[in-house]
Amino acid sequence: MAVIDTMPAVARRAGTGAMTDRVREILSCYESDSPGTKTNLARLLTHGYLAGTGKLVILPVDQGFEHGPARSFAVNPPGYDPNYHFEMAIQAGCNAYAAPLGFLEAAAARHAGEVPLILKLNNHDLLYDEKDPISAVTGSVRDALRLGCVAIGFTIYPGSAGARTMYEQLRALAEEAKGHGLAVVVWSYPRGSQLSKEGETAIDVVAYAAHIAAQLGAHVIKVKLPTAHIEQAEAQKAYTKAAVSINTLAERVRHVVQSTFNGRRIVIFSGGALKADDEAVLAGSARSSAATRSSGPESTPSPS
Amino acid sequence: MAVIDTMPAVARRAGTGAMTDRVREILSCYESDSPGTKTNLARLLTHGYLAGTGKLVILPVDQGFEHGPARSFAVNPPGYDPNYHFEMAIQAGCNAYAAPLGFLEAAAARHAGEVPLILKLNNHDLLYDEKDPISAVTGSVRDALRLGCVAIGFTIYPGSAGARTMYEQLRALAEEAKGHGLAVVVWSYPRGSQLSKEGETAIDVVAYAAHIAAQLGAHVIKVKLPTAHIEQAEAQKAYTKAAVSINTLAERVRHVVQSTFNGRRIVIFSGGALKADDEAVLAGSARSSAATRSSGPESTPSPS
Amino acid sequence: MAVIDTMPAVARRAGTGAMTDRVREILSCYESDSPGTKTNLARLLTHGYLAGTGKLVILPVDQGFEHGPARSFAVNPPGYDPNYHFEMAIQAGCNAYAAPLGFLEAAAARHAGEVPLILKLNNHDLLYDEKDPISAVTGSVRDALRLGCVAIGFTIYPGSAGARTMYEQLRALAEEAKGHGLAVVVWSYPRGSQLSKEGETAIDVVAYAAHIAAQLGAHVIKVKLPTAHIEQAEAQKAYTKAAVSINTLAERVRHVVQSTFNGRRIVIFSGGALKADDEAVLAGSARSSAATRSSGPESTPSPS
Amino acid sequence: MAVIDTMPAVARRAGTGAMTDRVREILSCYESDSPGTKTNLARLLTHGYLAGTGKLVILPVDQGFEHGPARSFAVNPPGYDPNYHFEMAIQAGCNAYAAPLGFLEAAAARHAGEVPLILKLNNHDLLYDEKDPISAVTGSVRDALRLGCVAIGFTIYPGSAGARTMYEQLRALAEEAKGHGLAVVVWSYPRGSQLSKEGETAIDVVAYAAHIAAQLGAHVIKVKLPTAHIEQAEAQKAYTKAAVSINTLAERVRHVVQSTFNGRRIVIFSGGALKADDEAVLAGSARSSAATRSSGPESTPSPS
Amino acid sequence: MAVIDTMPAVARRAGTGAMTDRVREILSCYESDSPGTKTNLARLLTHGYLAGTGKLVILPVDQGFEHGPARSFAVNPPGYDPNYHFEMAIQAGCNAYAAPLGFLEAAAARHAGEVPLILKLNNHDLLYDEKDPISAVTGSVRDALRLGCVAIGFTIYPGSAGARTMYEQLRALAEEAKGHGLAVVVWSYPRGSQLSKEGETAIDVVAYAAHIAAQLGAHVIKVKLPTAHIEQAEAQKAYTKAAVSINTLAERVRHVVQSTFNGRRIVIFSGGALKADDEAVLAGSARSSAATRSSGPESTPSPS
Repeated sequence: MAVIDTMPAVARRAGTGAMTDRVREILSCYESDSPGTKTNLARLLTHGYLAGTGKLVILPVDQGFEHGPARSFAVNPPGYDPNYHFEMAIQAGCNAYAAPLGFLEAAAARHAGEVPLILKLNNHDLLYDEKDPISAVTGSVRDALRLGCVAIGFTIYPGSAGARTMYEQLRALAEEAKGHGLAVVVWSYPRGSQLSKEGETAIDVVAYAAHIAAQLGAHVIKVKLPTAHIEQAEAQKAYTKAAVSINTLAERVRHVVQSTFNGRRIVIFSGGALKADDEAVLAGSARSSAATRSSGPESTPSPS
Repeated sequence: MAVIDTMPAVARRAGTGAMTDRVREILSCYESDSPGTKTNLARLLTHGYLAGTGKLVILPVDQGFEHGPARSFAVNPPGYDPNYHFEMAIQAGCNAYAAPLGFLEAAAARHAGEVPLILKLNNHDLLYDEKDPISAVTGSVRDALRLGCVAIGFTIYPGSAGARTMYEQLRALAEEAKGHGLAVVVWSYPRGSQLSKEGETAIDVVAYAAHIAAQLGAHVIKVKLPTAHIEQAEAQKAYTKAAVSINTLAERVRHVVQSTFNGRRIVIFSGGALKADDEAVLAGSARSSAATRSSGPESTPSPS
Repeated sequence: MAVIDTMPAVARRAGTGAMTDRVREILSCYESDSPGTKTNLARLLTHGYLAGTGKLVILPVDQGFEHGPARSFAVNPPGYDPNYHFEMAIQAGCNAYAAPLGFLEAAAARHAGEVPLILKLNNHDLLYDEKDPISAVTGSVRDALRLGCVAIGFTIYPGSAGARTMYEQLRALAEEAKGHGLAVVVWSYPRGSQLSKEGETAIDVVAYAAHIAAQLGAHVIKVKLPTAHIEQAEAQKAYTKAAVSINTLAERVRHVVQSTFNGRRIVIFSGGALKADDEAVLAGSARSSAATRSSGPESTPSPS
Repeated sequence: MAVIDTMPAVARRAGTGAMTDRVREILSCYESDSPGTKTNLARLLTHGYLAGTGKLVILPVDQGFEHGPARSFAVNPPGYDPNYHFEMAIQAGCNAYAAPLGFLEAAAARHAGEVPLILKLNNHDLLYDEKDPISAVTGSVRDALRLGCVAIGFTIYPGSAGARTMYEQLRALAEEAKGHGLAVVVWSYPRGSQLSKEGETAIDVVAYAAHIAAQLGAHVIKVKLPTAHIEQAEAQKAYTKAAVSINTLAERVRHVVQSTFNGRRIVIFSGGALKADDEAVLAGSARSSAATRSSGPESTPSPS
Repeated sequence: MAVIDTMPAVARRAGTGAMTDRVREILSCYESDSPGTKTNLARLLTHGYLAGTGKLVILPVDQGFEHGPARSFAVNPPGYDPNYHFEMAIQAGCNAYAAPLGFLEAAAARHAGEVPLILKLNNHDLLYDEKDPISAVTGSVRDALRLGCVAIGFTIYPGSAGARTMYEQLRALAEEAKGHGLAVVVWSYPRGSQLSKEGETAIDVVAYAAHIAAQLGAHVIKVKLPTAHIEQAEAQKAYTKAAVSINTLAERVRHVVQSTFNGRRIVIFSGGALKADDEAVLAGSARSSAATRSSGPESTPSPS
């Protein structure tokens, strides 16, 4: 978590609560949303080390469910304790902490009011794995409200034969969440029997997946850093015809941001092992005037 | 968009709001509908350049979801911005603008009251493609109401093994929409494992698909321009026996209009690259006394 | 209806459908509302002779219920027919027509799409009159939707011992209406055992009644033209202390507009028999930057 | 029941089922209603001796509840048996039979399909009498459906301090009934502490009561034959000013018909002991072009 | 607002977002509440100038509704504008801003995320005043959620013949609020026909009213500063018998705090014109180990 680690610990919470022109500009992109949803987006954007900058780092910890506890926590046994992740999110000055029902129920009361929470409403495990996965719905909007969350989180797998089911679950949950003043965060991770392994992070596929999440009504969209691979022949033709440059990571980030309503939706990029990746993300998103985005730190566990 | 392009821009909104005998005649075809649904059909028919003529041009922009953002917008980057399409629909004097949830949420507040809106309630993407496709339900009737729409839009794929699912989803949504005074627009596009590629636009298949949409309770039906190909042997026999002439596009258009309750439902034809196509559509529909119909402009993006 | 009568009939609907900067400015005052509610407010403001000006004339016809058919229509027998009032509202270029359930049901299908409609959801009759009146709820939000209305209408009698009941009915109906994208129009007419007859139109009472309607969430508020009478001793003290000038009608209109969130809500004044009254209303509201308002025409029947 | 008694029994059901231009004309007045409600109105209008004429005789038998069984049936003991009234309605060729829940439950199965039924959804008894009466709701729309009724029936007492309660009950029941394709029949009988005894049948009061029922959404309205008495001073002024003639019964009937949307709603007159009354009713309603109405026979038991 | 006025403006928001041991101590008093409700209490306690101190200043602005706009805003005309109060609450560093529906709807979107909000769910006006008042319910829990509030607010009048109605309304709303993770703030102001004017602020009555609010499940209770008057003879006996000292304001404050579960509920005192009052409140509450409390500033408008 390079960027954050270079900051003195004492300064980390300095910005919390600060409304800024940048945040107001971002909120103005959500013009059809209720004041409640805007308020919860503002809570996300005005908390932690990056408060008010228009950038976001969300700490998601669902890998115990997604990959099993041993793979997730054995090398760092304190991670078995739900409080550990709350405290990491708080101390690191993350904008929010996202987890499945159990982890939040176990520690949300103790840490009430200390960090914005996102309840991940679906999860998938590896004891039954499939080429065309569907996550199980594991929480509700009412759960999110009773746990004090600012948003619901939901993962979709565009490319899966089960994508339709997940889109429809998301649709219903998002409508209910918005009706109760919550925000909607979507992890859009392409997977499925018609995609190659490289295709899952191909620039055309990542941009498409981000666009689908935006069309489904997500306020915040998280995708993986896209590679220069192009999966679909028709996309290749379109890039060539329009002379879209996707050679550098910054260009690719810019293309993904453009694909989410020309930067009118918040996009977060996960993955990226190098400091150079962060710089690329920042460079790629610099041209976008209306959306906020940030590289997720390289070491952040990412959902599924 | 040949017809419209020949009109001076200044005249484009001239007709907005004008109730005419032709519109009243069309509304009289919907005699079982509530005044609310009739009102919303009237709003469609009295807006824009074609206001009051009984002809309709709807601008649907869901190709970002259906085909991916690169293929849809790379050649015309302003199209990544949801406001662009609203403004195009308004400036071109279209009768209505149709889009998925995300695109409408992103720009409906800013453009409130400027153009009738149709919320497309289902969508399909190409990251998982199948021979027998089913679109995912991606919006609700309540969404349509809170966004100020005059109608819901829904795509069915007659011919797909999944058609039954889509018919049943449409049934439930249409019932709810009508109960709230909204109109129902159905895109009926034959696809599926038992249809040949040419069969998707075969005259017998297009007429059959249009009829199914009408039987499912659609107020407005959009189909593709039919070719002279005949897909089903039994249809061929019937055409021969009854000496139905389908040689010209005008004749085929007339046959489709006839197949939607003898012209008592609005039919819109998409596709058609030539000005001659428009003329054929107009000619083909001229004999119908009670329905309105119009060629969709050649350059209008069509759903799926 | 002096203002309108001076206009040539041919010009009356000229402005219909025209979105203007003035209308956008007014819509911006309703920043917490859904695009659906904004759309219906826009429909009100862009219809009829005053389309786009930010001024409103609503034709309400509920006096048959409120005062009896003989008193209402005997001098003008065509008024017994529900179609008559629709046609008057359409031909006079009113922004909207408001009536109880029966009148709208009887003629809304025939006139679908010709004039924005407001369903009056409560009514009171004189066969049982009381010092502290409560109107009966006579329609529903679902009725408003199936009849194609842009808004619900509701009358409150601040000052009545039954005011609490009416406020609570309005609260529930307004919440449901907003949830379905409708606008809320409130007639706020002070009446009750603690008010003198002159007090019903006293400047302090009218301003108070308008403020209550705004606090209850009304988008559009209709009150009677206030007189210079001051009913409440405490209000007299406040006016004196703050040197509030209420001598002229224009000053009083300005004070009422100020009392509805400093002009951030639409106020319509009914009554006023003289052309000078209209001018006073226009003058009094001219300083307000954000609200629209208009004199109701002298001859328009006003509810209760 | 003079008119009917003079007809040979064999001819009585001759017209049943006959759709006529007159019935179609009447149905056209209910333009906002669903085909289901229109169908049930058609069943009323095409059954019995008066089938197709546009005239109606409904046999209501709720006097056992309203006045007690002894007063109602002791002089004619077969009247204690629910089947008796069904059979009377059938044999007399009435358009419909109306009764409370118990009477219909007791005999509806045996006579299924033999006569249109109306379930009276509220009733009042004399064991507790009051100056400002409110009837109790004694049945539901679901009851009406399971008993095979064409309509619900409901009594309101305009003038009662409890009128508001009854209007609101009717509103809810009528909405539900219409939503299920039923028709709504309202008995509108002025009563209450502010009305004199003569006022209950005063021409101004009866016309007002009929108008209120129409505004509340009734399809069929039953009132008592009005006298020349005028109850309200303001009505007297209006009649004088407009030179409304109410000297003859025919003129008064005409005025009541006019007051129910200029004849666009069915009005039935109860009471009237003389054959001359029938003629007056027929004469008074002859000028109305669009509504149907008929004298109720003199001996028909009338509700409350 | 003495305490706050002595602080340099630049420092006012310094503490926002700071979780402290004192806040955690207070939250521990609400051990049966959900993490959501605790989170919203924490938001109240960690916002503004007093963030983290365990003290609270809430700015309530409902006096336009409660006393009329002239009495409330004429001396300070900017107060007519809903934005003014939001901005005052933000700039003064208040912990929260409380207002009726209309005021929040008018400005909540613009100020989303800038100050914790409390939607006042009932209000009373003076156009009809009564000895035993009942406020009208003017908002809902769903309204509070869609407007982004941390709590609902509700006024009860212990001592009123209508108290039971208000207790029962509060019960239902509080249950719903807690089920959605909101906090509950209760204004408990004794009024009614059995209380003398002095009795409304008598120490025994204020303590009793505070206790009732706590028993009804309030998380935060606002009362008026109590006088040394004792209203109820039985209370006098108990104080004498137990030698309870209530001579000084500090003692009386201590007694009220004790009466709300021995300081386990937050109590806020309104009124108090002198700096000495503030000191008394602080002194009186110093011995309480588990609750937070603060004087409301002298010049803050108090509800009803």
